[in-house]
Amino acid sequence: MKGPARTPDSAFWVDRADVEGDRLRLSAAESRHLLRVFRAAPGASFEAIDGEGILYRCVLESASDGIAAGRIESRVENAGELAAKLIVLAGLPDLPQVETIVSLAVPLGATAIDFVATGRSDRGALPPARIERLGRIARSALKQSRRTRLPLLRSSEGLEAASRLLPEGSTRFLAEPGGAFMSKALREADQVANLQIVMAVGPPGGFLRDETALLQDRGFAPISLGPSRLTTSTAVLVLLATTRNLILASGLGPVDKTGPPGYLQ
Amino acid sequence: MKGPARTPDSAFWVDRADVEGDRLRLSAAESRHLLRVFRAAPGASFEAIDGEGILYRCVLESASDGIAAGRIESRVENAGELAAKLIVLAGLPDLPQVETIVSLAVPLGATAIDFVATGRSDRGALPPARIERLGRIARSALKQSRRTRLPLLRSSEGLEAASRLLPEGSTRFLAEPGGAFMSKALREADQVANLQIVMAVGPPGGFLRDETALLQDRGFAPISLGPSRLTTSTAVLVLLATTRNLILASGLGPVDKTGPPGYLQ
Repeated sequence: MKGPARTPDSAFWVDRADVEGDRLRLSAAESRHLLRVFRAAPGASFEAIDGEGILYRCVLESASDGIAAGRIESRVENAGELAAKLIVLAGLPDLPQVETIVSLAVPLGATAIDFVATGRSDRGALPPARIERLGRIARSALKQSRRTRLPLLRSSEGLEAASRLLPEGSTRFLAEPGGAFMSKALREADQVANLQIVMAVGPPGGFLRDETALLQDRGFAPISLGPSRLTTSTAVLVLLATTRNLILASGLGPVDKTGPPGYLQ
Repeated sequence: MKGPARTPDSAFWVDRADVEGDRLRLSAAESRHLLRVFRAAPGASFEAIDGEGILYRCVLESASDGIAAGRIESRVENAGELAAKLIVLAGLPDLPQVETIVSLAVPLGATAIDFVATGRSDRGALPPARIERLGRIARSALKQSRRTRLPLLRSSEGLEAASRLLPEGSTRFLAEPGGAFMSKALREADQVANLQIVMAVGPPGGFLRDETALLQDRGFAPISLGPSRLTTSTAVLVLLATTRNLILASGLGPVDKTGPPGYLQ
Protein backbone atom coordinates (compact mmCIF):
# COMPACT_ATOMS: atom_id res chain seq x y z
CA MET A 1 0.00 0.00 0.00
CA LYS A 2 3.04 2.30 -0.39
CA GLY A 3 3.88 4.75 -3.17
CA PRO A 4 2.01 7.58 -4.86
CA ALA A 5 -1.29 7.28 -6.72
CA ARG A 6 -0.97 6.60 -10.47
CA THR A 7 -3.47 7.49 -13.16
CA PRO A 8 -5.04 4.21 -14.33
CA ASP A 9 -3.74 3.30 -17.80
CA SER A 10 -6.67 0.99 -18.47
CA ALA A 11 -10.43 1.28 -18.16
CA PHE A 12 -12.33 -0.64 -15.45
CA TRP A 13 -15.13 -3.05 -16.11
CA VAL A 14 -18.61 -2.21 -14.84
CA ASP A 15 -21.74 -4.31 -15.26
CA ARG A 16 -24.74 -2.42 -16.62
CA ALA A 17 -26.67 -3.56 -13.56
CA ASP A 18 -24.26 -1.59 -11.37
CA VAL A 19 -24.92 1.70 -13.17
CA GLU A 20 -27.79 3.80 -11.79
CA GLY A 21 -28.37 7.29 -13.05
CA ASP A 22 -25.12 9.20 -12.62
CA ARG A 23 -23.60 6.73 -10.16
CA LEU A 24 -21.81 3.39 -10.65
CA ARG A 25 -20.16 0.74 -8.48
CA LEU A 26 -17.25 -1.50 -9.50
CA SER A 27 -17.07 -5.19 -8.55
CA ALA A 28 -14.82 -6.23 -5.65
CA ALA A 29 -12.05 -7.32 -8.03
CA GLU A 30 -12.16 -4.17 -10.15
CA SER A 31 -12.38 -2.02 -7.01
CA ARG A 32 -9.27 -3.70 -5.61
CA HIS A 33 -7.41 -2.89 -8.81
CA LEU A 34 -8.43 0.78 -8.73
CA LEU A 35 -7.94 1.26 -4.99
CA ARG A 36 -4.86 -0.88 -4.37
CA VAL A 37 -2.85 -1.00 -7.59
CA PHE A 38 -3.60 2.58 -8.55
CA ARG A 39 -4.06 3.82 -4.93
CA ALA A 40 -7.00 5.95 -6.01
CA ALA A 41 -8.51 8.18 -3.32
CA PRO A 42 -11.89 9.93 -3.41
CA GLY A 43 -11.72 12.68 -6.02
CA ALA A 44 -9.54 10.65 -8.42
CA SER A 45 -10.65 10.25 -12.04
CA PHE A 46 -11.15 6.87 -13.66
CA GLU A 47 -12.91 5.38 -16.65
CA ALA A 48 -15.22 2.39 -16.80
CA ILE A 49 -16.62 0.41 -19.74
CA ASP A 50 -19.65 -1.85 -19.79
CA GLY A 51 -18.87 -4.05 -22.79
CA GLU A 52 -22.10 -2.87 -24.38
CA GLY A 53 -20.82 0.30 -25.97
CA ILE A 54 -20.50 2.89 -23.20
CA LEU A 55 -17.39 4.43 -21.67
CA TYR A 56 -18.10 6.26 -18.41
CA ARG A 57 -15.77 9.06 -17.28
CA CYS A 58 -16.02 9.01 -13.50
CA VAL A 59 -14.77 10.57 -10.29
CA LEU A 60 -14.27 8.27 -7.31
CA GLU A 61 -16.72 9.21 -4.54
CA SER A 62 -16.24 6.53 -1.92
CA ALA A 63 -14.35 3.33 -1.24
CA SER A 64 -16.12 1.83 1.73
CA ASP A 65 -15.97 -1.95 2.26
CA GLY A 66 -13.43 -2.09 -0.59
CA ILE A 67 -16.05 -1.17 -3.18
CA ALA A 68 -15.30 1.77 -5.44
CA ALA A 69 -18.32 3.96 -6.09
CA GLY A 70 -18.11 6.77 -8.60
CA ARG A 71 -20.03 9.71 -9.98
CA ILE A 72 -20.40 9.62 -13.79
CA GLU A 73 -19.25 12.93 -15.24
CA SER A 74 -19.83 11.97 -18.87
CA ARG A 75 -20.65 9.02 -21.12
CA VAL A 76 -19.01 8.31 -24.50
CA GLU A 77 -21.01 6.01 -26.72
CA ASN A 78 -19.05 3.48 -28.78
CA ALA A 79 -15.69 4.81 -27.58
CA GLY A 80 -12.83 3.04 -29.33
CA GLU A 81 -15.18 1.33 -31.80
CA LEU A 82 -14.97 1.28 -35.59
CA ALA A 83 -17.88 2.10 -37.88
CA ALA A 84 -17.64 -1.39 -39.43
CA LYS A 85 -18.28 -4.83 -37.99
CA LEU A 86 -15.23 -7.08 -38.41
CA ILE A 87 -16.03 -10.78 -38.15
CA VAL A 88 -13.23 -13.35 -38.07
CA LEU A 89 -13.53 -17.03 -39.02
CA ALA A 90 -10.28 -18.65 -37.92
CA GLY A 91 -9.56 -22.29 -38.69
CA LEU A 92 -9.01 -23.63 -35.15
CA PRO A 93 -5.26 -23.61 -34.37
CA ASP A 94 -3.55 -24.78 -31.15
CA LEU A 95 -4.64 -23.13 -27.90
CA PRO A 96 -1.72 -20.69 -27.52
CA GLN A 97 -2.52 -19.33 -30.99
CA VAL A 98 -6.23 -19.16 -30.09
CA GLU A 99 -5.36 -16.99 -27.07
CA THR A 100 -2.98 -14.82 -29.11
CA ILE A 101 -5.75 -14.23 -31.64
CA VAL A 102 -8.21 -13.12 -28.95
CA SER A 103 -5.77 -10.86 -27.15
CA LEU A 104 -4.62 -9.12 -30.34
CA ALA A 105 -7.85 -9.14 -32.37
CA VAL A 106 -9.79 -7.33 -29.65
CA PRO A 107 -7.62 -4.16 -29.65
CA LEU A 108 -7.79 -4.20 -33.46
CA GLY A 109 -11.58 -4.00 -33.44
CA ALA A 110 -12.87 -7.53 -34.08
CA THR A 111 -16.60 -7.71 -33.29
CA ALA A 112 -16.91 -11.51 -33.53
CA ILE A 113 -14.43 -14.38 -33.70
CA ASP A 114 -15.48 -17.90 -34.61
CA PHE A 115 -12.82 -20.57 -34.08
CA VAL A 116 -13.99 -23.09 -36.65
CA ALA A 117 -12.99 -26.75 -36.32
CA THR A 118 -11.95 -27.58 -39.89
CA GLY A 119 -10.44 -30.61 -41.60
CA ARG A 120 -6.86 -29.76 -40.63
CA SER A 121 -7.65 -28.61 -37.07
CA ASP A 122 -6.30 -30.95 -34.41
CA ARG A 123 -9.52 -30.95 -32.42
CA GLY A 124 -13.27 -30.44 -32.49
CA ALA A 125 -15.00 -27.17 -31.67
CA LEU A 126 -13.94 -25.55 -28.37
CA PRO A 127 -16.15 -26.44 -25.38
CA PRO A 128 -18.12 -23.76 -23.47
CA ALA A 129 -15.61 -23.67 -20.58
CA ARG A 130 -12.83 -22.75 -23.01
CA ILE A 131 -14.98 -20.06 -24.65
CA GLU A 132 -15.64 -18.65 -21.19
CA ARG A 133 -11.90 -18.50 -20.49
CA LEU A 134 -11.37 -16.74 -23.82
CA GLY A 135 -14.12 -14.31 -22.81
CA ARG A 136 -12.03 -13.28 -19.82
CA ILE A 137 -9.03 -12.64 -22.08
CA ALA A 138 -11.27 -10.58 -24.39
CA ARG A 139 -12.60 -8.54 -21.47
CA SER A 140 -9.10 -7.77 -20.26
CA ALA A 141 -7.99 -6.77 -23.80
CA LEU A 142 -11.09 -4.58 -24.13
CA LYS A 143 -10.25 -2.72 -20.92
CA GLN A 144 -6.61 -2.20 -21.89
CA SER A 145 -7.44 -0.99 -25.36
CA ARG A 146 -10.36 1.16 -24.14
CA ARG A 147 -12.81 -0.26 -26.63
CA THR A 148 -16.33 -0.54 -25.30
CA ARG A 149 -18.10 -3.44 -27.04
CA LEU A 150 -17.19 -6.97 -26.01
CA PRO A 151 -16.74 -9.15 -29.12
CA LEU A 152 -18.78 -12.30 -29.57
CA LEU A 153 -16.67 -15.45 -29.26
CA ARG A 154 -17.75 -18.84 -30.50
CA SER A 155 -16.48 -22.09 -31.97
CA SER A 156 -18.34 -23.78 -34.81
CA GLU A 157 -18.04 -27.36 -35.94
CA GLY A 158 -17.15 -26.90 -39.61
CA LEU A 159 -17.43 -24.06 -42.09
CA GLU A 160 -20.95 -24.97 -43.19
CA ALA A 161 -22.22 -24.30 -39.66
CA ALA A 162 -20.05 -21.19 -39.28
CA SER A 163 -21.20 -19.67 -42.55
CA ARG A 164 -24.88 -20.12 -41.67
CA LEU A 165 -24.33 -17.72 -38.75
CA LEU A 166 -22.93 -14.89 -40.90
CA PRO A 167 -24.93 -11.75 -41.62
CA GLU A 168 -26.59 -11.77 -45.04
CA GLY A 169 -25.01 -9.41 -47.49
CA SER A 170 -21.71 -9.14 -45.58
CA THR A 171 -18.50 -8.55 -47.58
CA ARG A 172 -16.39 -11.70 -47.30
CA PHE A 173 -12.68 -12.31 -47.74
CA LEU A 174 -10.63 -15.47 -47.59
CA ALA A 175 -6.85 -15.44 -47.03
CA GLU A 176 -5.52 -17.42 -49.96
CA PRO A 177 -2.21 -17.30 -51.83
CA GLY A 178 -2.83 -16.03 -55.34
CA GLY A 179 -5.75 -13.81 -54.31
CA ALA A 180 -6.05 -10.06 -54.71
CA PHE A 181 -4.59 -7.62 -52.18
CA MET A 182 -6.89 -6.30 -49.50
CA SER A 183 -6.66 -2.62 -50.33
CA LYS A 184 -7.73 -3.25 -53.92
CA ALA A 185 -10.47 -5.69 -52.97
CA LEU A 186 -11.94 -3.42 -50.33
CA ARG A 187 -11.88 -0.43 -52.63
CA GLU A 188 -13.92 -2.43 -55.11
CA ALA A 189 -16.35 -3.71 -52.48
CA ASP A 190 -19.39 -1.66 -51.66
CA GLN A 191 -17.79 -0.21 -48.55
CA VAL A 192 -20.15 2.48 -47.57
CA ALA A 193 -23.36 0.56 -47.90
CA ASN A 194 -21.88 -2.56 -46.38
CA LEU A 195 -20.14 -2.33 -43.07
CA GLN A 196 -20.02 -6.01 -42.20
CA ILE A 197 -16.75 -7.57 -43.23
CA VAL A 198 -15.99 -11.26 -42.69
CA MET A 199 -12.41 -12.55 -42.87
CA ALA A 200 -11.63 -16.27 -43.09
CA VAL A 201 -8.17 -17.67 -42.34
CA GLY A 202 -7.25 -21.35 -42.50
CA PRO A 203 -5.90 -23.43 -39.61
CA PRO A 204 -2.19 -24.40 -39.62
CA GLY A 205 -1.78 -26.33 -42.88
CA GLY A 206 -4.61 -24.37 -44.47
CA PHE A 207 -8.16 -25.10 -45.50
CA LEU A 208 -8.88 -28.31 -47.42
CA ARG A 209 -9.76 -27.88 -51.09
CA ASP A 210 -13.45 -28.59 -50.35
CA GLU A 211 -13.46 -26.00 -47.60
CA THR A 212 -12.01 -23.32 -49.87
CA ALA A 213 -14.64 -24.22 -52.47
CA LEU A 214 -17.43 -23.95 -49.88
CA LEU A 215 -16.20 -20.51 -48.80
CA GLN A 216 -15.94 -19.28 -52.38
CA ASP A 217 -19.46 -20.59 -52.98
CA ARG A 218 -20.58 -18.50 -49.98
CA GLY A 219 -19.11 -15.36 -51.52
CA PHE A 220 -15.64 -15.24 -49.95
CA ALA A 221 -13.19 -13.46 -52.28
CA PRO A 222 -9.54 -14.63 -52.13
CA ILE A 223 -7.08 -12.15 -50.63
CA SER A 224 -3.31 -12.57 -50.76
CA LEU A 225 -1.35 -11.66 -47.66
CA GLY A 226 1.97 -11.43 -49.49
CA PRO A 227 4.99 -13.51 -50.35
CA SER A 228 5.99 -14.94 -46.96
CA ARG A 229 4.22 -17.66 -45.00
CA LEU A 230 2.22 -16.54 -41.98
CA THR A 231 0.81 -18.51 -39.07
CA THR A 232 -2.96 -18.52 -38.57
CA SER A 233 -2.72 -15.92 -35.81
CA THR A 234 -0.44 -13.58 -37.77
CA ALA A 235 -2.67 -13.90 -40.84
CA VAL A 236 -5.73 -12.91 -38.75
CA LEU A 237 -3.89 -9.88 -37.41
CA VAL A 238 -2.72 -8.81 -40.85
CA LEU A 239 -6.27 -8.98 -42.23
CA LEU A 240 -7.68 -7.07 -39.26
CA ALA A 241 -4.95 -4.41 -39.29
CA THR A 242 -5.27 -3.86 -43.01
CA THR A 243 -9.05 -3.72 -43.04
CA ARG A 244 -9.10 -1.45 -39.99
CA ASN A 245 -6.76 1.03 -41.63
CA LEU A 246 -8.69 1.02 -44.88
CA ILE A 247 -11.98 1.61 -43.10
CA LEU A 248 -10.50 4.47 -41.11
CA ALA A 249 -8.85 5.97 -44.21
CA SER A 250 -12.11 5.65 -46.18
CA GLY A 251 -13.50 8.45 -44.06
CA LEU A 252 -15.96 6.27 -42.17
CA GLY A 253 -13.58 6.65 -39.29
CA PRO A 254 -14.21 5.63 -35.73
CA VAL A 255 -17.70 5.76 -34.29
CA ASP A 256 -16.50 7.84 -31.36
CA LYS A 257 -15.73 11.20 -32.94
CA THR A 258 -14.19 12.58 -29.74
CA GLY A 259 -11.10 10.52 -30.46
CA PRO A 260 -8.91 8.57 -28.08
CA PRO A 261 -6.54 9.98 -25.48
CA GLY A 262 -3.67 7.97 -27.00
CA TYR A 263 -3.03 4.67 -28.65
CA LEU A 264 -0.30 3.40 -26.39
CA GLN A 265 -0.85 1.62 -23.16
CA MET B 1 12.60 -42.47 -34.84
CA LYS B 2 9.16 -43.95 -35.60
CA GLY B 3 6.48 -42.73 -37.99
CA PRO B 4 6.40 -41.78 -41.66
CA ALA B 5 8.47 -39.04 -43.27
CA ARG B 6 6.80 -35.61 -43.38
CA THR B 7 7.42 -32.83 -45.85
CA PRO B 8 9.24 -30.06 -43.96
CA ASP B 9 6.90 -27.11 -43.35
CA SER B 10 9.79 -24.73 -42.79
CA ALA B 11 12.98 -23.91 -44.67
CA PHE B 12 16.37 -24.91 -43.25
CA TRP B 13 19.21 -22.53 -42.56
CA VAL B 14 22.40 -22.85 -44.57
CA ASP B 15 25.51 -20.70 -44.23
CA ARG B 16 26.81 -19.28 -47.51
CA ALA B 17 30.17 -20.91 -46.71
CA ASP B 18 28.47 -24.33 -46.86
CA VAL B 19 27.19 -23.81 -50.41
CA GLU B 20 29.53 -24.91 -53.20
CA GLY B 21 28.36 -24.96 -56.80
CA ASP B 22 25.21 -27.08 -56.89
CA ARG B 23 25.82 -28.74 -53.52
CA LEU B 24 25.16 -27.63 -49.94
CA ARG B 25 25.59 -29.03 -46.41
CA LEU B 26 23.43 -28.20 -43.41
CA SER B 27 24.86 -27.69 -39.93
CA ALA B 28 24.60 -30.52 -37.38
CA ALA B 29 21.57 -28.89 -35.70
CA GLU B 30 19.72 -28.23 -38.95
CA SER B 31 20.60 -31.71 -40.23
CA ARG B 32 19.16 -33.27 -37.07
CA HIS B 33 15.92 -31.39 -37.65
CA LEU B 34 15.64 -32.53 -41.27
CA LEU B 35 16.74 -36.13 -40.66
CA ARG B 36 15.12 -36.82 -37.28
CA VAL B 37 12.04 -34.61 -36.99
CA PHE B 38 11.08 -34.92 -40.65
CA ARG B 39 12.69 -38.36 -41.14
CA ALA B 40 14.01 -37.31 -44.54
CA ALA B 41 15.77 -40.04 -46.55
CA PRO B 42 17.99 -39.54 -49.60
CA GLY B 43 15.79 -38.41 -52.50
CA ALA B 44 13.58 -36.23 -50.27
CA SER B 45 13.02 -32.57 -51.21
CA PHE B 46 13.79 -29.72 -48.87
CA GLU B 47 14.41 -26.00 -49.02
CA ALA B 48 17.22 -23.98 -47.49
CA ILE B 49 17.73 -20.24 -47.03
CA ASP B 50 20.96 -18.37 -46.44
CA GLY B 51 19.65 -15.17 -44.83
CA GLU B 52 21.30 -13.23 -47.64
CA GLY B 53 18.51 -13.46 -50.18
CA ILE B 54 18.65 -16.95 -51.68
CA LEU B 55 16.23 -19.85 -51.30
CA TYR B 56 17.69 -23.16 -52.48
CA ARG B 57 15.36 -25.94 -53.62
CA CYS B 58 17.25 -29.14 -52.85
CA VAL B 59 17.15 -32.91 -52.94
CA LEU B 60 18.79 -34.78 -50.07
CA GLU B 61 21.75 -36.78 -51.37
CA SER B 62 23.38 -38.18 -48.26
CA ALA B 63 23.12 -38.15 -44.49
CA SER B 64 26.40 -39.61 -43.33
CA ASP B 65 27.71 -38.66 -39.86
CA GLY B 66 24.38 -36.96 -39.23
CA ILE B 67 25.12 -34.21 -41.76
CA ALA B 68 22.54 -33.61 -44.50
CA ALA B 69 24.10 -32.93 -47.89
CA GLY B 70 21.90 -31.88 -50.77
CA ARG B 71 21.96 -31.17 -54.48
CA ILE B 72 20.61 -27.74 -55.41
CA GLU B 73 17.95 -28.09 -58.07
CA SER B 74 17.12 -24.40 -58.31
CA ARG B 75 17.73 -21.07 -56.61
CA VAL B 76 15.10 -18.37 -56.00
CA GLU B 77 16.51 -14.92 -55.38
CA ASN B 78 14.76 -12.79 -52.75
CA ALA B 79 12.07 -15.41 -52.15
CA GLY B 80 9.46 -14.12 -49.72
CA GLU B 81 10.86 -10.57 -49.82
CA LEU B 82 9.00 -7.34 -50.53
CA ALA B 83 10.14 -4.75 -53.04
CA ALA B 84 10.38 -2.15 -50.25
CA LYS B 85 12.65 -1.89 -47.23
CA LEU B 86 10.63 -1.61 -44.00
CA ILE B 87 12.60 -0.17 -41.10
CA VAL B 88 11.10 -0.15 -37.59
CA LEU B 89 12.11 2.18 -34.75
CA ALA B 90 10.39 0.80 -31.65
CA GLY B 91 10.62 2.64 -28.33
CA LEU B 92 12.14 -0.09 -26.17
CA PRO B 93 9.35 -1.96 -24.33
CA ASP B 94 9.73 -4.87 -21.85
CA LEU B 95 11.58 -7.97 -23.05
CA PRO B 96 8.52 -10.16 -23.77
CA GLN B 97 7.22 -7.41 -26.07
CA VAL B 98 10.66 -7.08 -27.68
CA GLU B 99 10.59 -10.79 -28.52
CA THR B 100 6.99 -10.61 -29.79
CA ILE B 101 8.00 -7.77 -32.09
CA VAL B 102 10.90 -9.74 -33.56
CA SER B 103 8.94 -12.95 -34.03
CA LEU B 104 6.01 -11.21 -35.74
CA ALA B 105 7.81 -8.42 -37.59
CA VAL B 106 10.07 -10.84 -39.42
CA PRO B 107 7.25 -12.74 -41.23
CA LEU B 108 5.71 -9.36 -42.11
CA GLY B 109 8.82 -8.26 -43.96
CA ALA B 110 10.74 -5.94 -41.60
CA THR B 111 14.26 -5.38 -42.94
CA ALA B 112 15.62 -3.63 -39.85
CA ILE B 113 14.40 -3.17 -36.29
CA ASP B 114 15.99 -0.69 -33.90
CA PHE B 115 14.85 -0.98 -30.27
CA VAL B 116 15.47 2.57 -29.18
CA ALA B 117 15.95 3.38 -25.49
CA THR B 118 13.75 6.47 -25.06
CA GLY B 119 12.68 8.62 -22.13
CA ARG B 120 9.85 6.32 -21.07
CA SER B 121 11.72 3.03 -21.66
CA ASP B 122 12.52 1.19 -18.44
CA ARG B 123 16.12 0.52 -19.42
CA GLY B 124 19.06 1.56 -21.57
CA ALA B 125 19.84 0.14 -25.00
CA LEU B 126 19.91 -3.68 -25.21
CA PRO B 127 23.37 -5.24 -24.75
CA PRO B 128 25.02 -7.29 -27.54
CA ALA B 129 24.18 -10.63 -25.86
CA ARG B 130 20.49 -9.75 -25.96
CA ILE B 131 20.70 -8.68 -29.61
CA GLU B 132 22.34 -12.01 -30.38
CA ARG B 133 19.48 -13.86 -28.69
CA LEU B 134 16.98 -11.82 -30.71
CA GLY B 135 18.96 -12.75 -33.82
CA ARG B 136 18.22 -16.41 -33.14
CA ILE B 137 14.50 -15.63 -32.83
CA ALA B 138 14.69 -13.71 -36.12
CA ARG B 139 16.44 -16.60 -37.85
CA SER B 140 13.81 -19.04 -36.69
CA ALA B 141 11.00 -16.72 -37.84
CA LEU B 142 12.73 -16.27 -41.20
CA LYS B 143 12.86 -20.05 -41.73
CA GLN B 144 9.22 -20.55 -40.77
CA SER B 145 7.98 -17.73 -42.95
CA ARG B 146 10.30 -18.68 -45.86
CA ARG B 147 11.69 -15.21 -46.27
CA THR B 148 15.32 -15.13 -47.30
CA ARG B 149 16.95 -11.95 -45.95
CA LEU B 150 17.77 -11.79 -42.25
CA PRO B 151 16.71 -8.40 -40.86
CA LEU B 152 19.21 -6.16 -39.14
CA LEU B 153 18.58 -5.88 -35.39
CA ARG B 154 20.01 -3.18 -33.20
CA SER B 155 19.32 -1.09 -30.13
CA SER B 156 20.15 2.63 -30.12
CA GLU B 157 20.54 4.89 -27.12
CA GLY B 158 18.01 7.60 -27.92
CA LEU B 159 16.22 8.77 -31.06
CA GLU B 160 18.96 11.18 -32.07
CA ALA B 161 21.39 8.28 -32.46
CA ALA B 162 18.75 6.06 -34.11
CA SER B 163 17.77 8.68 -36.66
CA ARG B 164 21.39 9.26 -37.71
CA LEU B 165 21.46 5.63 -38.91
CA LEU B 166 18.43 5.97 -41.21
CA PRO B 167 18.78 6.02 -44.99
CA GLU B 168 18.64 9.53 -46.46
CA GLY B 169 15.48 10.25 -48.34
CA SER B 170 13.49 7.45 -46.70
CA THR B 171 9.73 7.94 -46.20
CA ARG B 172 9.08 8.23 -42.46
CA PHE B 173 5.99 7.67 -40.37
CA LEU B 174 5.35 8.09 -36.68
CA ALA B 175 2.43 6.38 -34.90
CA GLU B 176 0.63 9.25 -33.21
CA PRO B 177 -3.02 9.79 -32.26
CA GLY B 178 -4.46 12.54 -34.41
CA GLY B 179 -2.26 11.73 -37.42
CA ALA B 180 -3.38 10.74 -40.90
CA PHE B 181 -4.25 7.16 -41.81
CA MET B 182 -1.55 5.06 -43.39
CA SER B 183 -3.26 4.30 -46.67
CA LYS B 184 -3.78 8.00 -47.38
CA ALA B 185 -0.29 8.97 -46.27
CA LEU B 186 1.39 6.28 -48.33
CA ARG B 187 -0.63 7.12 -51.41
CA GLU B 188 0.59 10.69 -51.10
CA ALA B 189 4.20 9.67 -50.50
CA ASP B 190 6.46 9.14 -53.47
CA GLN B 191 6.03 5.38 -53.32
CA VAL B 192 7.59 4.25 -56.51
CA ALA B 193 10.75 6.28 -56.33
CA ASN B 194 11.19 5.67 -52.63
CA LEU B 195 11.12 2.18 -51.32
CA GLN B 196 12.60 2.76 -47.90
CA ILE B 197 9.90 3.24 -45.31
CA VAL B 198 10.68 3.93 -41.66
CA MET B 199 8.01 3.44 -38.98
CA ALA B 200 8.45 4.80 -35.45
CA VAL B 201 6.34 3.60 -32.52
CA GLY B 202 6.67 4.84 -28.97
CA PRO B 203 7.48 2.71 -25.91
CA PRO B 204 4.69 1.91 -23.40
CA GLY B 205 3.51 5.33 -22.26
CA GLY B 206 4.54 6.87 -25.58
CA PHE B 207 7.28 9.17 -26.76
CA LEU B 208 8.02 12.29 -24.72
CA ARG B 209 7.00 15.58 -26.29
CA ASP B 210 10.62 16.40 -27.17
CA GLU B 211 11.04 13.01 -28.81
CA THR B 212 7.98 13.50 -31.00
CA ALA B 213 9.30 16.94 -31.95
CA LEU B 214 12.69 15.47 -32.84
CA LEU B 215 11.07 12.84 -35.06
CA GLN B 216 8.86 15.39 -36.79
CA ASP B 217 11.94 17.53 -37.36
CA ARG B 218 13.58 14.49 -39.01
CA GLY B 219 10.66 14.15 -41.43
CA PHE B 220 8.42 11.65 -39.63
CA ALA B 221 4.75 12.19 -40.59
CA PRO B 222 2.15 11.36 -37.89
CA ILE B 223 -0.03 8.32 -38.64
CA SER B 224 -3.13 7.39 -36.62
CA LEU B 225 -3.67 3.74 -35.86
CA GLY B 226 -7.34 4.18 -34.98
CA PRO B 227 -9.58 4.75 -32.02
CA SER B 228 -8.45 2.06 -29.56
CA ARG B 229 -5.23 1.97 -27.56
CA LEU B 230 -2.56 -0.44 -28.77
CA THR B 231 0.54 -1.78 -27.07
CA THR B 232 3.94 -1.01 -28.62
CA SER B 233 4.13 -4.48 -30.17
CA THR B 234 0.61 -4.39 -31.61
CA ALA B 235 1.21 -0.91 -33.01
CA VAL B 236 4.38 -2.12 -34.77
CA LEU B 237 2.47 -5.03 -36.29
CA VAL B 238 -0.38 -2.82 -37.46
CA LEU B 239 2.03 -0.43 -39.18
CA LEU B 240 3.93 -3.29 -40.82
CA ALA B 241 0.79 -5.15 -41.93
CA THR B 242 -0.79 -2.03 -43.36
CA THR B 243 2.33 -0.85 -45.16
CA ARG B 244 2.99 -4.34 -46.50
CA ASN B 245 -0.48 -4.62 -47.97
CA LEU B 246 -0.32 -1.18 -49.53
CA ILE B 247 3.05 -1.92 -51.12
CA LEU B 248 1.78 -5.20 -52.52
CA ALA B 249 -1.44 -3.61 -53.76
CA SER B 250 0.48 -0.74 -55.36
CA GLY B 251 1.70 -3.20 -57.94
CA LEU B 252 5.29 -3.23 -56.72
CA GLY B 253 4.47 -6.63 -55.36
CA PRO B 254 6.93 -9.13 -53.97
CA VAL B 255 10.46 -9.32 -55.33
CA ASP B 256 10.10 -13.05 -55.96
CA LYS B 257 7.68 -13.20 -58.88
CA THR B 258 7.39 -16.99 -58.71
CA GLY B 259 5.14 -16.57 -55.68
CA PRO B 260 4.99 -18.61 -52.50
CA PRO B 261 3.73 -22.15 -52.09
CA GLY B 262 1.27 -20.98 -49.40
CA TYR B 263 1.07 -18.48 -46.61
CA LEU B 264 0.18 -20.81 -43.79
CA GLN B 265 2.67 -22.77 -41.78
